[in-house]
Amino acid sequence: MTEHRMEKDLLGELPVPAQAYYGVHTLRAAQNFAVSGCRVHPELLRALAEVKWAAARANRQAGLLTANIADAVSAAAREVARGQLADQFIVDALQGGAGTSTNMNMNEVLANRAIELLGGQKGDYRLVHPLNHVNMSQSTNDTYPTALRIAAIRLVLALSDAMARLQGALQEKEAQFAGVLKLGRTELQDALPVTLGQEFGAYAEAVARDRWRLYKVEERLRQINLGGTAVGTGLNAPRRYIYQVVEELRQITGLGLARAENPVDLTQNADVFAEVSGLVKAAAVNLAKIAGDLMLLAAGPAGGLAEINLPPRQAGSSIMPGKVNPVIPEMVTQAAWQVMGADQVICQACAGGRLELNAFLPLVAHNLLHGLEILAKTAQIFADKCVRGITANEQRCRRWLEESHVLVTALAPYIGYEQAAALARRAREQHKTIKEIVLESGLLSEEEWHALAAPRELTRPGIAGARRLAGRLGKDLKRGDE
Amino acid sequence: MTEHRMEKDLLGELPVPAQAYYGVHTLRAAQNFAVSGCRVHPELLRALAEVKWAAARANRQAGLLTANIADAVSAAAREVARGQLADQFIVDALQGGAGTSTNMNMNEVLANRAIELLGGQKGDYRLVHPLNHVNMSQSTNDTYPTALRIAAIRLVLALSDAMARLQGALQEKEAQFAGVLKLGRTELQDALPVTLGQEFGAYAEAVARDRWRLYKVEERLRQINLGGTAVGTGLNAPRRYIYQVVEELRQITGLGLARAENPVDLTQNADVFAEVSGLVKAAAVNLAKIAGDLMLLAAGPAGGLAEINLPPRQAGSSIMPGKVNPVIPEMVTQAAWQVMGADQVICQACAGGRLELNAFLPLVAHNLLHGLEILAKTAQIFADKCVRGITANEQRCRRWLEESHVLVTALAPYIGYEQAAALARRAREQHKTIKEIVLESGLLSEEEWHALAAPRELTRPGIAGARRLAGRLGKDLKRGDE
Amino acid sequence: MTEHRMEKDLLGELPVPAQAYYGVHTLRAAQNFAVSGCRVHPELLRALAEVKWAAARANRQAGLLTANIADAVSAAAREVARGQLADQFIVDALQGGAGTSTNMNMNEVLANRAIELLGGQKGDYRLVHPLNHVNMSQSTNDTYPTALRIAAIRLVLALSDAMARLQGALQEKEAQFAGVLKLGRTELQDALPVTLGQEFGAYAEAVARDRWRLYKVEERLRQINLGGTAVGTGLNAPRRYIYQVVEELRQITGLGLARAENPVDLTQNADVFAEVSGLVKAAAVNLAKIAGDLMLLAAGPAGGLAEINLPPRQAGSSIMPGKVNPVIPEMVTQAAWQVMGADQVICQACAGGRLELNAFLPLVAHNLLHGLEILAKTAQIFADKCVRGITANEQRCRRWLEESHVLVTALAPYIGYEQAAALARRAREQHKTIKEIVLESGLLSEEEWHALAAPRELTRPGIAGARRLAGRLGKDLKRGDE
Amino acid sequence: MTEHRMEKDLLGELPVPAQAYYGVHTLRAAQNFAVSGCRVHPELLRALAEVKWAAARANRQAGLLTANIADAVSAAAREVARGQLADQFIVDALQGGAGTSTNMNMNEVLANRAIELLGGQKGDYRLVHPLNHVNMSQSTNDTYPTALRIAAIRLVLALSDAMARLQGALQEKEAQFAGVLKLGRTELQDALPVTLGQEFGAYAEAVARDRWRLYKVEERLRQINLGGTAVGTGLNAPRRYIYQVVEELRQITGLGLARAENPVDLTQNADVFAEVSGLVKAAAVNLAKIAGDLMLLAAGPAGGLAEINLPPRQAGSSIMPGKVNPVIPEMVTQAAWQVMGADQVICQACAGGRLELNAFLPLVAHNLLHGLEILAKTAQIFADKCVRGITANEQRCRRWLEESHVLVTALAPYIGYEQAAALARRAREQHKTIKEIVLESGLLSEEEWHALAAPRELTRPGIAGARRLAGRLGKDLKRGDE
Repeated sequence: MTEHRMEKDLLGELPVPAQAYYGVHTLRAAQNFAVSGCRVHPELLRALAEVKWAAARANRQAGLLTANIADAVSAAAREVARGQLADQFIVDALQGGAGTSTNMNMNEVLANRAIELLGGQKGDYRLVHPLNHVNMSQSTNDTYPTALRIAAIRLVLALSDAMARLQGALQEKEAQFAGVLKLGRTELQDALPVTLGQEFGAYAEAVARDRWRLYKVEERLRQINLGGTAVGTGLNAPRRYIYQVVEELRQITGLGLARAENPVDLTQNADVFAEVSGLVKAAAVNLAKIAGDLMLLAAGPAGGLAEINLPPRQAGSSIMPGKVNPVIPEMVTQAAWQVMGADQVICQACAGGRLELNAFLPLVAHNLLHGLEILAKTAQIFADKCVRGITANEQRCRRWLEESHVLVTALAPYIGYEQAAALARRAREQHKTIKEIVLESGLLSEEEWHALAAPRELTRPGIAGARRLAGRLGKDLKRGDE
Repeated sequence: MTEHRMEKDLLGELPVPAQAYYGVHTLRAAQNFAVSGCRVHPELLRALAEVKWAAARANRQAGLLTANIADAVSAAAREVARGQLADQFIVDALQGGAGTSTNMNMNEVLANRAIELLGGQKGDYRLVHPLNHVNMSQSTNDTYPTALRIAAIRLVLALSDAMARLQGALQEKEAQFAGVLKLGRTELQDALPVTLGQEFGAYAEAVARDRWRLYKVEERLRQINLGGTAVGTGLNAPRRYIYQVVEELRQITGLGLARAENPVDLTQNADVFAEVSGLVKAAAVNLAKIAGDLMLLAAGPAGGLAEINLPPRQAGSSIMPGKVNPVIPEMVTQAAWQVMGADQVICQACAGGRLELNAFLPLVAHNLLHGLEILAKTAQIFADKCVRGITANEQRCRRWLEESHVLVTALAPYIGYEQAAALARRAREQHKTIKEIVLESGLLSEEEWHALAAPRELTRPGIAGARRLAGRLGKDLKRGDE
Repeated sequence: MTEHRMEKDLLGELPVPAQAYYGVHTLRAAQNFAVSGCRVHPELLRALAEVKWAAARANRQAGLLTANIADAVSAAAREVARGQLADQFIVDALQGGAGTSTNMNMNEVLANRAIELLGGQKGDYRLVHPLNHVNMSQSTNDTYPTALRIAAIRLVLALSDAMARLQGALQEKEAQFAGVLKLGRTELQDALPVTLGQEFGAYAEAVARDRWRLYKVEERLRQINLGGTAVGTGLNAPRRYIYQVVEELRQITGLGLARAENPVDLTQNADVFAEVSGLVKAAAVNLAKIAGDLMLLAAGPAGGLAEINLPPRQAGSSIMPGKVNPVIPEMVTQAAWQVMGADQVICQACAGGRLELNAFLPLVAHNLLHGLEILAKTAQIFADKCVRGITANEQRCRRWLEESHVLVTALAPYIGYEQAAALARRAREQHKTIKEIVLESGLLSEEEWHALAAPRELTRPGIAGARRLAGRLGKDLKRGDE
Repeated sequence: MTEHRMEKDLLGELPVPAQAYYGVHTLRAAQNFAVSGCRVHPELLRALAEVKWAAARANRQAGLLTANIADAVSAAAREVARGQLADQFIVDALQGGAGTSTNMNMNEVLANRAIELLGGQKGDYRLVHPLNHVNMSQSTNDTYPTALRIAAIRLVLALSDAMARLQGALQEKEAQFAGVLKLGRTELQDALPVTLGQEFGAYAEAVARDRWRLYKVEERLRQINLGGTAVGTGLNAPRRYIYQVVEELRQITGLGLARAENPVDLTQNADVFAEVSGLVKAAAVNLAKIAGDLMLLAAGPAGGLAEINLPPRQAGSSIMPGKVNPVIPEMVTQAAWQVMGADQVICQACAGGRLELNAFLPLVAHNLLHGLEILAKTAQIFADKCVRGITANEQRCRRWLEESHVLVTALAPYIGYEQAAALARRAREQHKTIKEIVLESGLLSEEEWHALAAPRELTRPGIAGARRLAGRLGKDLKRGDE
C-alpha cells in the first residue's frame, strides 16, 4: 500500500503519495488533463527550472528571500535543470490553464526538494512554500512564456546545427558526383542535362538557407516578459527584483536574453512562435522535397530511374527476396509532414489568444518543441544514415541521357531550332541516339561531338562547345538571326 | 552486462539482447527511426496480433502450417492482443517502410514467444520462423492496413460512445436550464432572447450528429485487403487461405469485417482514412465551438458574462487569490485544434501514396489513432469534469436581458417597427429598462407585459403573447400592412 | 456623369447610382469590404433568390403580404434565380456581418426590380420595401444558412456527377488495359506484377467511393433553419408562415428540404459544412493520388517509366523541341491541394462560431462553394482531356518487368524461398532475365514458363501456374513445409 | 460573327479571334485549364512583362536581337507592365505546366503588340516571333520564378506599409486611452488591471514586429534565377546576355535584384516562398488576435463587455432595431484565416517540387500574391474603417473594475495574502466593492486608497502605492518575510 500525505488547496484536501515531490496542485492537474499521454517537453522543464533558479537569486538580492531558502531553491532548481526528478513532472502536455499546472508542478517539486535539502519533511511548506517562496514575484504568465522561449532557442539552435550537418553531407556528394552527367527532368519529363553533383549542390544550398534562417530567428526569441507577472504590467514584482532576474537568467542559461520593452505585449501576443514555426516549416518543406527526389532517383532497381543507390538500412519485404526500400527518405517525408501539420496547430493557437494572455501556450509548446526535436533528429538521421552512403549509378545516368533526345537542344544554336527538331524526329523514328544520328549525318566528327557534349559544356551557362565549334558549321552564334 | 544473441539479416549480423522477444529486424528499425519518441499505438498492435492469429489459424486449415506451430503462434498472438509484452514493441511511430518494421516487430515477438511456448530458446527460428511461419501467406501491405482499419473501428466506436456521454451530459443541462431566460447574442451583440436550456440543447444536437456520423463511418472501415499480399493481387496466397482468413479474423475480433472486392484498390488507396479523419475533425469543430461558448458564458466572475458557473477543477493563480480558470474547456479547445492539425497530416499522407502502395500509412496510423484517442478522452473529461457540474447564474442572465433593449422587438408586431424603435431610444436616453418604459407609457399593464415577456413566448416560433394580446392594442396581427 | 438617387440608412444618406438595383445597404457593404475582389458564388445568389421567392409566397398565404407585392417580389426573385441582374451583386465574398450584406443586397435588388415590375421608380420603397416586404418574417440568420445549404447540395451533386464521369473514363481504361502486364511498384521499388488495367481499376474504385460519399452526404444538407429568424427560436415569424415557407421552397427548388427539428442548433452550429468539406477533401486526396501516379507512369519519354502516354494538350517548352508536359495531372494536383487548403479555412471558420450564430459563414460559403466548383470542373477536365486519351506503352511495360527480377517470387512456392533467391542472384550477376535463367537451368520448359508467367496467373490470388505446374517440380504446394 | 486567324502549334491548327493579341498557345491553355475562374495576379503579369523587356534589351546588347525588334518588344512590354491589354491574359490561375502557359500568353501578346507597333498584322510572326524573339535566351523556368519574386517583393512591401498604417492607428489609440484604467482578463477571467492604452499598445507592438519581419524578408526574394534557362544551368543562354539581363531588370524595376549564385537551386527549390508565406501567416495571426479582442471588448451594448465602441459601418439587423455588428473585425478575422489556409497550400506546393523544377509554382503564385493583397487591403481597412474610430466607454471600464475584487491583490504586499483573501471574501459576501470594504475597515483612508489604486500605480512594475504607503501599515515592503 502506498503511503500518503494530505495536502490542501482551494478545492479541499487530497492525498498525495508520500514519496512524491509534486503536491496537490500537480495531482489535481494530472487528474484533470489525462488526455494525450504526452509529457511536457524536457527542454521546457529545464528552462522553467532555470527561471525559478534565477528568480530565487534575484529575490534574495532584492532582500525578499532569506539566503537559506533561496539557496535551497536554487540547488533544487539546478538539479531539475540537469534532468533529475524528471518522473515528477506528471501533468499532460495538452493541459488547460495556460501553463499554470506545469508552473505549479515545478513550484511543488522544487519546494519539496528544497525542503529535503534543508532537512525537512516533504509537504512541510512552512520551510519552503511553492507559492510564497518558489513562485515569489512571479506568475505563470511571465515564467512560462519565458521558459518556452528559452527552450525554443535551444532547440532552434540544435535544429540549425543538424541542418548544418545535413548540408555538409550533401556537399560531400556534390563534390563526389561533380562529374556524373545525367538527364535533367522538369515536370518529370526529359529536360536539359545536369550533373548529379549539381543536384546535390542545389539541395545543400536549400538546406544552407534553412540553417541561416533558423540561426537568425533565434534572436527574435531572446526578448522575455519575465518580471511582468500576471498581465505584463509587473504589479507586485518589486523593481529591484525585476532588473536583477533577467541578468541572473542570462548568466544561468548563457543565452543573450533581454527584458522586453513591453511585457504586456509579450504576455499576450504569441506571434513570435508563429514566426519560428513558419521557418521550421520552411525547413520541413526542403526536407520533404529532397527526400522525395531521392526516392525518385533511387527508384528501381530495374523499373525506375535508379540513378543513385541509397545505402540499405534494413530488409524491405518478406515476400520479395532482396527488396530494399527507401526507408530513411520515407521517414524524413513523414517527419516533414508532421511538422507542417504542427505549424497549423501552433498558428491556430497563437491566433486564439484573448486579451491579456494566450491560454493556449501549452499547445504551442507541445507542437513547437516536439516538432523542433523531431526535425533535428530527422536531419541528423538523414545525413548519417542516408545521404552519406549514397552512391551514383553512373551507367544508369548515362543510359537515360543517351536514350533521350534532349542533347539536340545543344545543337540548336548552330543549326537552328527547325533542323534540330528534324534530327530529333529522325532519331526517334530510327531508334537511334542523337549522337549516332549526328555522326551519321556528318554534321560533327566524333571529336567535335565530345567537345559539344562534354559535361562541363552542357551544364554551365552559355552555348555548349562554343570555343571549339564556333564557325565550324558556317554559322555565327546569332540565334537571333534564325 | 547485458547478454546477447546474434541474429542475422540481409545486412549482416547484429547482437540482440538475449531476453528480447524482438529480433534483428526490429532492432535495425529501432535504430533507424529514433526520431519522435512516440510509440506505435497499442490498438494497432492489438489488431495486428489478431491478424497474425487469424492467419495462423487459416494457414493451418489450408494445410500450410502444422498444428503445433499454428497453435503456438495463436497462443502468442492472443497474449499480445491482450496487452502482454507491450514493452517489446520498440519501433518509433514515425517509422519509414510502410509499416514493415511494425509488422516485423510483431512477427519476431510472436515467433520468439511461440518458440518459448514450444519449449525452445528465443532466437531458434527453426522452431517458429518470423517470416516463414508467422508471416506466412501475408505481406506488410495487407496485414498492416487491415490492422489499421480494425484499430480505427474500435477507436471510432469509442469516440462515438464518448460523444454519447457528452450528449447525455448536455441534455441534462438542457432540461435543467429550460426555464432560464437570457439574452441571445449574435456576432457577440445583444440579440433576441433564448433559454439557457436551448443553448445546451443546441450543443447536444450537434454532438448527436457527431455520434451518428462516427457510428456510421465505421461501416466504411470494414472492407479489408487481407489476402491481397504485396500489391493486392494475392499472388502466393493460396486461395484456401484467402477465403478462410477473413472469417477467422471476424470471429477473433467480433467485428463485421469483409474481404474487399478489389484488394488492389485498398492496398494503394487510403481515402477511407481521410474520410474518417474528416468526420473526426467535424467532431473537433463542435467541441471547439462548445468549449469556446462555455468560456465566454463563464467569463467573470465580475467582468464578463458570468451567466454560468463552471465547476472549479483547480486553483488558477498564485498571485490573485481565488481566481479559477476554465481549464477543462481550454483543454478541450486544445485537443480539438490538435486533432484538426492531425487531419492535415493524415490527408497529406493519404494523398501521397504512389502506385501500388501508400508508404505513409505509419504517419496516418499515428495521427488518426492518437487523435481518436485524444478526442474520446476529451469528450469524456468534458462531460464528467465540466458539463455535469455547470450551474446557472440566473440573476446574471436576468440582468443582461433587462439591461438590453432587445425585448422591444417582441412589441414590433403590435406597435410597428418605428414606434418600437422610438421606445428603445427613450429607454436608452432615460437609462431605463424596456419594461419600465412600456409600463410608464401605459401601452401594457404589468400582467400583459408578463404575458408577452414570458420565456416560452419569447423563445418559441410566432408572435410573442399573441393569444393574450391580440386585439389589445387595436391592431390585428398583420405585419404585412405596416 | 453618373446620376444618383439618395438613400438613407442608420448612418445617414448616401448617393446610389440611379440605375442600380442595389441600394444603400449594399453600397455601404461594398465600400466596407473591398478586400478580396472575389464575387459571391452565383449558386448562393440563386438559392437566396429562391428563398426570397418562397418567403414571398408563404407570406402571402399567411395573409401578411398583399398579392401584388408578393407576386412582384416572386417575379423578381425568379429572374435573379435564373441569373439575371448578376452584376448587381457587388459585395465582396469575404464580407463581415454573417451574410447580412448579401442578404440586404438581395433584398434591395429584388425590391427595386419588383418596384419596376409594378411600374414604379427604383428607390421608391413605399411600393416594395427591402426589409418590410422582401425580408418579411425572415432574418439573415435563417435565410443565408438555408441558401448556403441549397447551393452546397447542388454543387455536391454536380461534383458527384463529375466523379461519375471520371469513374467511367477510368473504367474504360481498366477494360482496355486488362491484358497489359507490368511491374508493380511499392515504395517506388520493383514489386509483384499487376496489369495496367488493375491500376486503372483501383483508381476507378476510389473515385466510385467519392461519388457515393458525396451522393450520400447531400441528405445531411437538407435540414434547414428557415423560419427560425434571428436566433433560431422563430420569434416574430408567424406560425402560418413558418410551416408554409419550407413547402414552397421545396417546390421551387425541387430538393427534398426539411425544416430542422431544432433551428436554434442549425443557426449556430456549422458542423455539417465541416463534414461536407471533409468528404470533398477525401475526393481531393484521391484526385491528387491518381494524378501523381499518372505523372509518374508517363514520365519520360526516355528517362522515366513511360508506361503510359498522356494525350498531348499543348506544347511544353520553348527551348526543348517536342517536349510535352503532363499539364492536366498538374492542374488536377493543384486543384486538389487548393481544396485541401480550403478545408482548413472552412473548419477554422466552423469552429469559430460563437453563441447563437456563426458569423463566419461567408468565409465557409466562399471556400466550400468555390472548392466544390473547382473540383467538379477538375474531375471533368481530368476525364475528358486526359484519362480518355491515355494509351499504353506495352513495350515499355514489358521491358521493366523483364529487366526486374520479381518474377522469381512466383517460383518460390515451387522451389522454396532460398533457391528462388539464388536464381535472382544469378540473374543479377549474369545480367540475364529471370526467364533466361529459368530456361537455361532446365527448371521449366518455355511452355511451362508461360503457364506460370501468364498475366492472369500473376495478377490473381493464389499460386501462379498451380493448375499446370502442380507436381511438376516434385513438390506439393506446401509452403508450410519449407 | 467573330473573325479568326489560323495559328498552328505542335498539335495542329486552331482558329484564334482575329483581334486577339494572344495566340494559339494561350488559347489551347485557356481551354485546358477552365477550372477556377481566377485570373493570374496583375502584379505577376506586370513583373513578367518587365522581365521580357529586360531580356529584349539584354539580347540586343548581346547582338542577338536587331534593334527594331528589340525596341518593339520593349515598347510592348512597357505597355503591358503599365496595365494595358490586361484582358488578353486569359489563362486560369490554376494552370498546369509550371507557368509555361502564362509565359506563352505573355510572349504572344508582346509579339503581336510589337508586330502592330512595327506596322504588321497580328499573327505575322515573321516580324516578331513569340519564341524566337520575345522568349529569346529564356525559359519559363527562369522567367516565371523571377517574375514571381518581383511580384512578391512589391506586395510584401505593400503589406509592410499597410501594417505600418495599422500600427499608427493603434498607437493613436494607445495615447488616447493611456488614462483609461480597466480590468485585465486572463483566460477570460478577471485579472490585474491594465489601461486600455496598454492594450492598444500591445497590439501596436505586435503589428510593428510584422512590419519589420516583412520588410526584412524582402531581401530574401531578391535572388533571381534569370539566365538559368530550363534547369538553371544556363545552357543556350549566351554569357553576354546572362550578365546583362539582371542589370537591365534592376534598372527597369528599381529593385535590388541579384543573380543567384546557384540558379540550379533556385529553379527547383521554392522554400523562400514558404518562408515568406510563413511570415505573412504570422501577420495574419496577429490580425486575427487583435480582431478577436476588439469583438470581445465591443460586445454588447448591454450584455457584453462594451468597454469600447467600434465605429458603426452599416446597419446590422433587419429584425432588431439599431443593432450594429463588428463587421470590420469579422472581415479581418476571415481574411486572416483565408491567408492561414493559403499558407498550407503554398507549403504543400513548395514541398511538391520534383527534381529540376517545381511544377506547382502557379499554385504558389496564386495563393501567395492573392493572400498578400488581401492582407494588405485588410490591414488598411482595419486601420481606416475601424481602429481610428474606436472610442472608449470609460464608465463601463470602471464598472467592471469596481465590481471585481482583483484590486485586493495590490494590498497583499502590505497586509499579506491571507488577510487580502479575507477582505475579498467579505466583499463578495456583503456585495460590496473592495474599496468600500477597505475604507470601512479603516485599513486605509480614502486618500491612501487613491494613492494605491491610481492607474499608474496599478499598471506599472512594482508594489502599488509604495512611495506613499510604505510603513503606513507597520510593515516594511518585505513580502519575503511573510
